[in-house]
Amino acid sequence: MTPQRRAGLGTNQEAVRRHNLGTLLRHVHGAGQISRAELTSLMGLNRSTIAGLVGELESLGISEHATPMGGARQGAGRPSAGVRIAAGGPYVIAVDLGVDRAVVARVGLGGRVLARAQAPVHSHGEAWQVGASVAALIRQVVEDAPPAAALVGIGISVPGLVRRRDGLVRLAPNLEWHDVSFGGIVLAALGLDVPVSLANDADLGALAEHVRGAGVGVDDLIYVSGNVGVGAGVIAGGVRLEGAGGYAGEVGHLRFNPQGRPCHCGNLGCWETEVGAHAIAEAIDCPPDKVAQLDEVLEGFTEPPRELRATGTALGHGLASIVNTFNPRLIVLGGYFRSLYPLVGAEVDSGLADRALPAPLESVTLVLPALGSDSALLGAAEIALEPLFVDPVAALGAALVDVRSRLAG
Amino acid sequence: MTPQRRAGLGTNQEAVRRHNLGTLLRHVHGAGQISRAELTSLMGLNRSTIAGLVGELESLGISEHATPMGGARQGAGRPSAGVRIAAGGPYVIAVDLGVDRAVVARVGLGGRVLARAQAPVHSHGEAWQVGASVAALIRQVVEDAPPAAALVGIGISVPGLVRRRDGLVRLAPNLEWHDVSFGGIVLAALGLDVPVSLANDADLGALAEHVRGAGVGVDDLIYVSGNVGVGAGVIAGGVRLEGAGGYAGEVGHLRFNPQGRPCHCGNLGCWETEVGAHAIAEAIDCPPDKVAQLDEVLEGFTEPPRELRATGTALGHGLASIVNTFNPRLIVLGGYFRSLYPLVGAEVDSGLADRALPAPLESVTLVLPALGSDSALLGAAEIALEPLFVDPVAALGAALVDVRSRLAG
Repeated sequence: MTPQRRAGLGTNQEAVRRHNLGTLLRHVHGAGQISRAELTSLMGLNRSTIAGLVGELESLGISEHATPMGGARQGAGRPSAGVRIAAGGPYVIAVDLGVDRAVVARVGLGGRVLARAQAPVHSHGEAWQVGASVAALIRQVVEDAPPAAALVGIGISVPGLVRRRDGLVRLAPNLEWHDVSFGGIVLAALGLDVPVSLANDADLGALAEHVRGAGVGVDDLIYVSGNVGVGAGVIAGGVRLEGAGGYAGEVGHLRFNPQGRPCHCGNLGCWETEVGAHAIAEAIDCPPDKVAQLDEVLEGFTEPPRELRATGTALGHGLASIVNTFNPRLIVLGGYFRSLYPLVGAEVDSGLADRALPAPLESVTLVLPALGSDSALLGAAEIALEPLFVDPVAALGAALVDVRSRLAG
Repeated sequence: MTPQRRAGLGTNQEAVRRHNLGTLLRHVHGAGQISRAELTSLMGLNRSTIAGLVGELESLGISEHATPMGGARQGAGRPSAGVRIAAGGPYVIAVDLGVDRAVVARVGLGGRVLARAQAPVHSHGEAWQVGASVAALIRQVVEDAPPAAALVGIGISVPGLVRRRDGLVRLAPNLEWHDVSFGGIVLAALGLDVPVSLANDADLGALAEHVRGAGVGVDDLIYVSGNVGVGAGVIAGGVRLEGAGGYAGEVGHLRFNPQGRPCHCGNLGCWETEVGAHAIAEAIDCPPDKVAQLDEVLEGFTEPPRELRATGTALGHGLASIVNTFNPRLIVLGGYFRSLYPLVGAEVDSGLADRALPAPLESVTLVLPALGSDSALLGAAEIALEPLFVDPVAALGAALVDVRSRLAG
């Protein structure tokens, strides 16, 4: 073997080791705390390799030793030592950009929200104004971050179509944005250069519910989000369905009632015109300036209003098209559908049962998000954390420390 | 290291070698003929490992040495020796069960159709009668198979919903089948015990067009098939979208016109009621007994009949829902849509452009299948060949030789 070959082999071994390190971190991140025995079994590596990887994560300040979690899952032997996410370790900034407000959080591994801030957003505000508001919120949430903790990146959830290749917001109808480079705007407002990732809110809701919400362990799920407009995020075979450009899941623009109302997309009777926030607001006489807070308005009802029954049925009929198309195991109803479903669940269920094909219907379940209204926010954290699971060493190398003083400068 | 450990390591190395052997075979199968230099580059293995694997495939009778294909793709050096599928190697039986006829082929690696037979099927025939017809066709196509060639398995394309777990035909509406174990029926009629795989016709059309048709190298494609009913097969991110049970892609039952015609599924105005064969036949006054041969009827038109224009528009409008939902790069129009599109392409295109969102619209292309009417048939061959790409040694070990005399006995 020539020296050149050996060098190549060494580089390959290093790549494998970093890959294993990232995969181990993904397991710790998903579980919050996990025993070495479980890691050994999950990763198919021997105990000494696991011990070496765990030691490296500890020396990077990412994880720490945890007292054993009891012997129940470890069989008769001594409980295995545990690994958990260290306090003061790397973090990301997650941004959930809504139609009327932005929520920003500092989020650590394990999906821990370490700080949170929010502010109203003017729905007709220019992108640079919204970017300045988001930057101000980011300054707030990093205020108390330990100076040594590393900022890995920023993840932003957008209520619109986001091009996967470069994060360009192609269309955010309720913000009236076309082709806005919102990631660049936020970075410019901050004066920082860190990795920034953007994606559609429903796609991120699906991701977060799959990683740590209602869909843990479910490989085929759809997160259907009512957020003024209606969209879906799809996990198929355990993987995010993105489509060629990143635009998959625009189920709000499924044809629903061709004799129906005009949709902002230019068509008549898209599903969104029947179950979108404007249609619901009209049905219950909610004033237009409250449409963006429809979830709160719906939560105010103690009795289901009769006027919402048709909306429930229309929601069920549209979900039937989704069930026939995707054959999901789970549908998670996010956004204001979280508040609508408890009011008209019977109508939704019977609308779905009446219209879906029996074979895919029999295995599907409707649920509410386990992460409440934070699904998209935590999904934004997930995409920003992702580089840590690919190569923690490289991701930390590219991360920023002492962020607060950099922002001040 | 204990002897036990070493044995474990040996087993693992053997598993890796067989995996590599299967992957190499998948490349040869996909390309038909491929140079060793390309295999080295595609698989990231060194030349001597590739040479060893190629030698093993040759000794198994699967591949053979091919003369170099010229130096164009090899740079300035000597053209690399090639590998191609050997004649007389393993084969599968592919069955395309249509509503009015069954096509059966003996198919070798590389997707070579070695023999083919077909016969009418009575659309109201009992499953055992259809099974007997298919078995007779299988006997025909193995008639001339070399006695030493191994039958790896049978793949069957079904116009209906097929449960992935066990291949049960849950519903084949135009055959009037519910919960039919058609694979078992065919094996019983043959008196053979070989692996049999069943899947939906549109799913198999998508697979075949992806492996060796219009969608080679395209990771996000949808094959939309008009085959009395309407269905789709979806490749997303390079992988078949199956859904929780295997039923994904039933786009014929997307809600389309709620004031429309009754659909066999019990709903009103599914997309299938506007662009399915019965609707088209009615529009052009085609007699009901010709509906299953709609492709031939449509091919008989030299001028596009005015009555089909609305169908073209409806096809475009439904495709827009598919584009909004899946954001595919490519839509392959199979079944009788192959014959319809050349007549009303302008209406289909403008219907799609009018209704799809601009972002996913700009990257999608409509094409006809490169495999003509054989997409589903060749897809059935692909699923039957699959065990060879997982572990060629095990698949050949489980395969049957001298099939003709076994069938005679």
